Amino acid sequence: MLPGIGVFGTGNVVKVVVPFLREKGFKIEAIWGRALKEAQDVAKELEIPFFTNKIDDVLLRKDVDLIFIICSPNLHSQISVKALGIGKHVLCDKPAGLCQSEALKMVRASQYYPSLISIVNHSLRFLPAFTQMRKAIMDGFLGNEEEITVCDVRVQMGSLLHDYYDWLCDDTMGGGVLTLVGSHVIDLVSHLLSQRAVRVHGVVRTFIKTTKEINGIRHISSPDFCTFQMEMNKGALVTVTLNNHLPGMFNQEVIICGKGGHLVVRGGDLYRYKAGSSKEEVMYLDVEDLQKYGSINPIAANVIPRPYMKGLFKMMGALREAFLPVEDKRGWIKEPVASAATFEDGLYVQAVIDALRKSSANREWIKVEQILEG
Amino acid sequence: MLPGIGVFGTGNVVKVVVPFLREKGFKIEAIWGRALKEAQDVAKELEIPFFTNKIDDVLLRKDVDLIFIICSPNLHSQISVKALGIGKHVLCDKPAGLCQSEALKMVRASQYYPSLISIVNHSLRFLPAFTQMRKAIMDGFLGNEEEITVCDVRVQMGSLLHDYYDWLCDDTMGGGVLTLVGSHVIDLVSHLLSQRAVRVHGVVRTFIKTTKEINGIRHISSPDFCTFQMEMNKGALVTVTLNNHLPGMFNQEVIICGKGGHLVVRGGDLYRYKAGSSKEEVMYLDVEDLQKYGSINPIAANVIPRPYMKGLFKMMGALREAFLPVEDKRGWIKEPVASAATFEDGLYVQAVIDALRKSSANREWIKVEQILEG
Repeated sequence: MLPGIGVFGTGNVVKVVVPFLREKGFKIEAIWGRALKEAQDVAKELEIPFFTNKIDDVLLRKDVDLIFIICSPNLHSQISVKALGIGKHVLCDKPAGLCQSEALKMVRASQYYPSLISIVNHSLRFLPAFTQMRKAIMDGFLGNEEEITVCDVRVQMGSLLHDYYDWLCDDTMGGGVLTLVGSHVIDLVSHLLSQRAVRVHGVVRTFIKTTKEINGIRHISSPDFCTFQMEMNKGALVTVTLNNHLPGMFNQEVIICGKGGHLVVRGGDLYRYKAGSSKEEVMYLDVEDLQKYGSINPIAANVIPRPYMKGLFKMMGALREAFLPVEDKRGWIKEPVASAATFEDGLYVQAVIDALRKSSANREWIKVEQILEG
Repeated sequence: MLPGIGVFGTGNVVKVVVPFLREKGFKIEAIWGRALKEAQDVAKELEIPFFTNKIDDVLLRKDVDLIFIICSPNLHSQISVKALGIGKHVLCDKPAGLCQSEALKMVRASQYYPSLISIVNHSLRFLPAFTQMRKAIMDGFLGNEEEITVCDVRVQMGSLLHDYYDWLCDDTMGGGVLTLVGSHVIDLVSHLLSQRAVRVHGVVRTFIKTTKEINGIRHISSPDFCTFQMEMNKGALVTVTLNNHLPGMFNQEVIICGKGGHLVVRGGDLYRYKAGSSKEEVMYLDVEDLQKYGSINPIAANVIPRPYMKGLFKMMGALREAFLPVEDKRGWIKEPVASAATFEDGLYVQAVIDALRKSSANREWIKVEQILEG
């Protein structure tokens, strides 16, 4: 049986997610917004029966069994921990928290309530090109795990900012390309390689500090460019470049090389090259109707890059599979969501992000260290 | 009047360069090889009238007025300096030398003989896409020079090694992706931006230390991967990834972003995006007959990546233009080769490479310092 859903957040992503959830059969029971007026407006637009600006008012509702947190990252930990304590499943959008101690609270809560689903929304894990890439790596296509040499990730896109000042402009609230895109990449690479970063080096920069619209006393502090390297625990070297200075495009390429050949995901398509062969061959082409997601929700295409959107849609399908076969509305089965990012994965991602920020500030390589006590 | 040419080197690149030079009207008078047999074989194959394994035997020939140095980089400085001293023009292949003191000797010699041409073969400067990119930047397409934000360069290709052990396997002799490809990229970026690197950070790695063919007592020490960042003197940040783990392909992309838009060269094509417009537009398409260079010399396509080959061919055209209008066979005019890389540029590139090696070894940012005394 599918659980009722409470949504935290009122941004454009909410307007993408809600129709997707409904398409998968979920019922949206309530929405929370920081400002009551915003919550009211979005509730009206999306036809959600209940709106509020009080966190507890959503969490305590009997018809809400799963909450979806898509508000600014600085509230993620607080809402997640409270929700799990009240006995609600939690699906939390990217950046788990803003510092590791917050992320650690989330891990503790998720460990304390193992009967509840607690998932970080790293949706790229569910994109078919990446699920197949991971399988090929595990099957030894690139060689054994020590034979994986280089992973190169590049994301080219336009600005992440709106044309008004909000949390996206603010580094301390979780805005910027490192938290918003980098967190997904860090999670994805670890997931694909089954390796974790040991030491990292990063250059994190904010080139655009004002825009035509945002030029008052509050300047933009969230980074619009970063490039970083990660040494992984089984020897792979990862290099990542995330660039927000390319308006009008979204290119994402993930290349993984090994002694046995290489695998590349470009957009949503997977290619492979076996050592000794003459050229790359297609392993998976993203032939699904490009219009499908757009027709469910026309806003989606402009808010979330397509691979992320498709991954999100697939992940919601996995959630449906997890809940549907169980009669009890709180019950669920593990298998469909087994490959989702856990709160532990979220803590790891946060530890890497913390190390990258420190590396960029101090201009040195930093060992990734997960804190054990909050 | 075109000068007679003496060639130093017997590798595959020589077999590409000689037919190109002839196509442009130059006469190849003599060839030098480290081993006499090699020199003899190549002389026979390319129908060059004189061969030797003694450097002076080429330099002292009266019919040789321009020498083209394409042998292993550790000999570049020695041959260049001697040639200029004897009064010959010098075109020296990439990496000027193996350390700055060698490169400095070349600079000194070139300054001492300003009436002689002394050029480093950074041929990408002559590729039409890059000449136009540079012009657009100088014309302010991206904004003023302080408004250039990010430059991202990526080169993806297969191994640079032959299937036998030679200097290409040896880091200390100038083999590897940093010297062979990185040197071109470092020169190109400085040329395009009219900025020089102030501080750099690099990760330089040799993942493949043995191959099926090279697995004796001598292992491969030349790097097959590097990623580096350069802070430029007017504020631009450059990030470069050079990857030899992608056999069967050659992709080169150079993106330069500024507040006014961005410019991208993909392969030999140039695109531009003006801030506020809806998408990229073509500025220059490499429509020249793809077969042209192959038909002049079928080996070329397999030895030198196409953009480098085309640049090389254009550069030889520029050399022809410099010599042809002047009656005296030693005389030349500056303008056609004014944008070529000088030995000073070569010293700068060497200083950056030295800093990158040190950065990679010490895991820290390194200030680029050009030595002033050898």
